[in-house]
Amino acid sequence: MPEFRQDPITQNWVIISTERAKRPSDFVSSKDREQKEKATIKDTCPFCPGNEEQTPPEVFALRSPNTRADTPGWQVRVVPNKFAALLPKEKGREQKVGLYRSLPGKGVHEVIIEIPEHEASFPNYPPRQAVRVLQAWRQRYLQHSQQGDLKYIQIFKNQGQIAGASLEHPHSQLLATPLVPPTVAQEIRRAQEYLKEKESCLFCDLLEREMQKGVRVVAFNKKFLAFCPYASRFPFETWIFPWQHQSHFGEIEDEQLEDLAAIIQDVLGRLQMALQDPPFNLVLRSAPVNEETEETRGYHWHFELLPRLTTVAGFEYGTGIYINPTPPELAAQFLTQANKEDENDGET
Amino acid sequence: MPEFRQDPITQNWVIISTERAKRPSDFVSSKDREQKEKATIKDTCPFCPGNEEQTPPEVFALRSPNTRADTPGWQVRVVPNKFAALLPKEKGREQKVGLYRSLPGKGVHEVIIEIPEHEASFPNYPPRQAVRVLQAWRQRYLQHSQQGDLKYIQIFKNQGQIAGASLEHPHSQLLATPLVPPTVAQEIRRAQEYLKEKESCLFCDLLEREMQKGVRVVAFNKKFLAFCPYASRFPFETWIFPWQHQSHFGEIEDEQLEDLAAIIQDVLGRLQMALQDPPFNLVLRSAPVNEETEETRGYHWHFELLPRLTTVAGFEYGTGIYINPTPPELAAQFLTQANKEDENDGET
Repeated sequence: MPEFRQDPITQNWVIISTERAKRPSDFVSSKDREQKEKATIKDTCPFCPGNEEQTPPEVFALRSPNTRADTPGWQVRVVPNKFAALLPKEKGREQKVGLYRSLPGKGVHEVIIEIPEHEASFPNYPPRQAVRVLQAWRQRYLQHSQQGDLKYIQIFKNQGQIAGASLEHPHSQLLATPLVPPTVAQEIRRAQEYLKEKESCLFCDLLEREMQKGVRVVAFNKKFLAFCPYASRFPFETWIFPWQHQSHFGEIEDEQLEDLAAIIQDVLGRLQMALQDPPFNLVLRSAPVNEETEETRGYHWHFELLPRLTTVAGFEYGTGIYINPTPPELAAQFLTQANKEDENDGET
Repeated sequence: MPEFRQDPITQNWVIISTERAKRPSDFVSSKDREQKEKATIKDTCPFCPGNEEQTPPEVFALRSPNTRADTPGWQVRVVPNKFAALLPKEKGREQKVGLYRSLPGKGVHEVIIEIPEHEASFPNYPPRQAVRVLQAWRQRYLQHSQQGDLKYIQIFKNQGQIAGASLEHPHSQLLATPLVPPTVAQEIRRAQEYLKEKESCLFCDLLEREMQKGVRVVAFNKKFLAFCPYASRFPFETWIFPWQHQSHFGEIEDEQLEDLAAIIQDVLGRLQMALQDPPFNLVLRSAPVNEETEETRGYHWHFELLPRLTTVAGFEYGTGIYINPTPPELAAQFLTQANKEDENDGET
C-alpha cells in the first residue's frame, strides 16, 4: 500500500510506493535487467496498437468512430499506470505518531499514450495530433479536478532513459495527489507577497519584462511565450507561459490549444535539432485544485521544459542550489538560431 | 565570471558558472566525448601521483616528511578545482534590477584527492587512510570558516558517473558559498519551531527514537548512528549523525574522527556489497558559518548518503515529492544483513 511520509526535519513529503515495490535484489545487476527490458520493448510494446490487452482498460481515448474501447483505432489513449505510485481506492487516514507523519497513498496515476506510432517524436507529430494530446491532458485534468479529495494534478512527460522514461513509445503521465506540493505552495506565497507589494501579478509582470528584454526569448505566438528563465537550473531550460492570466491548466480554451501545441512542437523541435534529441522532462505547473482562494487564483499555470544534459549531484542535493554551465541568454540565442526546418526534411 | 542568480518566482538560487562554460555545441554528441574522456583518464589521471603538475598547486596535503609540495609522497592532497564553479577573487556586489537579483560568484571550490591509489574505494581504504580524509575535510572546513564573507561550507563526494563524478580517481569536493542554502535554512527554522514547542533538540530526539525503534538502524558505534530516514527519498538513503549535539562539522573532535571514518566505511561497504557498487552522493549538512545565533547552534551536523539507483524525473521536478519504491525499513534490513566480510576477502 503506497504511503505519503513527511520528513520530520525537512518537512518534505515522499511517496513510499510499494505497488512498484522494488526488493533490494532488484537493484543488483541493473544493467542486465535494462538490456532485457529493452529487448522486450521492441518485441511487444504494451503501448502499440494491437497490444491493448497488455495495459489496464482505457479510461479515455480519442478514437475513430465505430471502434471499440481497448482495440486499435485510437489516436490518443489514456490508461491507468500498471505500476501506479498512488492508488484511487487507498483507504486510511492521516497518522501522526511522535515525529512521524503519514497519509494514505490515495491518488491517481495515468499514462497518456500520445500517438499510435512507436517511433514518432512530439515535435514531428502532425499538428492536429499534437493538439489531440493536449485535449487529452485537459480532459483528464478536468475529470480529476472534480474529485474533492485531490489537491493537485501533475502532468509531465519524461523523454529518454536518463530523464526517467522506461518505455520508448511516446507517452506522458498524470499523477493526482491529495496534498499541495511544496514547490507550488512556495510559488503561490511568493506571488501573494508580490501582489501585496506591487499590486500586480508576478507572473504577468515577468512575461512582459522577458518579452521587452528579448535576450532570453526562444519563441512566441499569439497566445504563448517561451523563454529560458533568468535563473535556469539546467542548460536550455525553457518555460512556456500563456499570455492570458489563468491559474489552472484546466481553464485552457480551445483557441489556446493550437497555439500551445505549436509552441511546444517548435521548442522541442529546436532542442531536438540543436542538441541531437536530448533527454528531457516537460512539467506542468498549475494551481492546486479544490482550493479556490484569492491566493490560488493568483497563480499562473505554465510548462517547464528541463533538458537533462547535466548531472544533479552532491552539491545540488546538499544545498538546493543548481550549478548551470550555460547562461540562459546563450541558450536562448542558440535555440532561436537552430534551424529546425533542416531536421524536418524527410521526416514524417 | 560566475554569478549567483535568484529566481523571481521560486526564490531559489542557481550558480551560472561560466568558468566551466559549456558552449551549446559541447552538449552535442556527448556520448563520443564521454568515451574520449574515459580513455584520457586511464592514460594520464591528473589525480595520480606523478601527475601533480596537471592540477593547480596544492593548498593542503598530508604527506611524508621531506617531500615537497606538488610532488609525490602525499597521502591526501587538496587542490583548487580546475573548473571551479565559484572563484575566491570574484569582485562585485549584490544587484537587484527589477525582478532580477544576483550576487557575484565568489567562493571556494576545492578537490580533496583522498588516496594515491587510482583503483581504491573508500570502504576498502586502510582505516587510518579513511581518518586522514576526514582530517583533511575538517582542516579545510575550519580554514574556510575563518573567511567572514563565506556563509556555508558544502563538503560532498560523488561516486560513479550517474552521480556526477567525472573522474574515477577517489576524490571529494568542497564548495564554500556566500549565502546560506535554502535547504539548511528550512531545517534550522523547523528545528527552532520544535525547540519552542518541545523544549528539546529535534535532531537529538530523532536519533533517540530511531535507536529505540531500531527498524531503520543500519549501524552504530560509540559516537555515531547510521539509519535509513523515515521519509527516504532514495532507496537505501542513509543518514549518519553524531550522538553528541554539535552544530558544525568543524567541531568534530579527534576521538570522533575514528568512529566517523569507521561508520562511513561500514555503511559504504554494506552498500557496495549488497548493491554491487552503486553510484552515490555523500553530502554533509552543517550549520551556516559566521552566523552564530541561537538558531544556528540548534542545528546538528550530519552526513546524508544518497544512492542513485532510481531516476529523478518529471514528477519529482514538478512537485518536489520523491517517489521511492523501497521502504526504508526494508532497506535497513537488507543493509544490516549484507555480509560485507565476503567482499573484503582478497581486497586490499
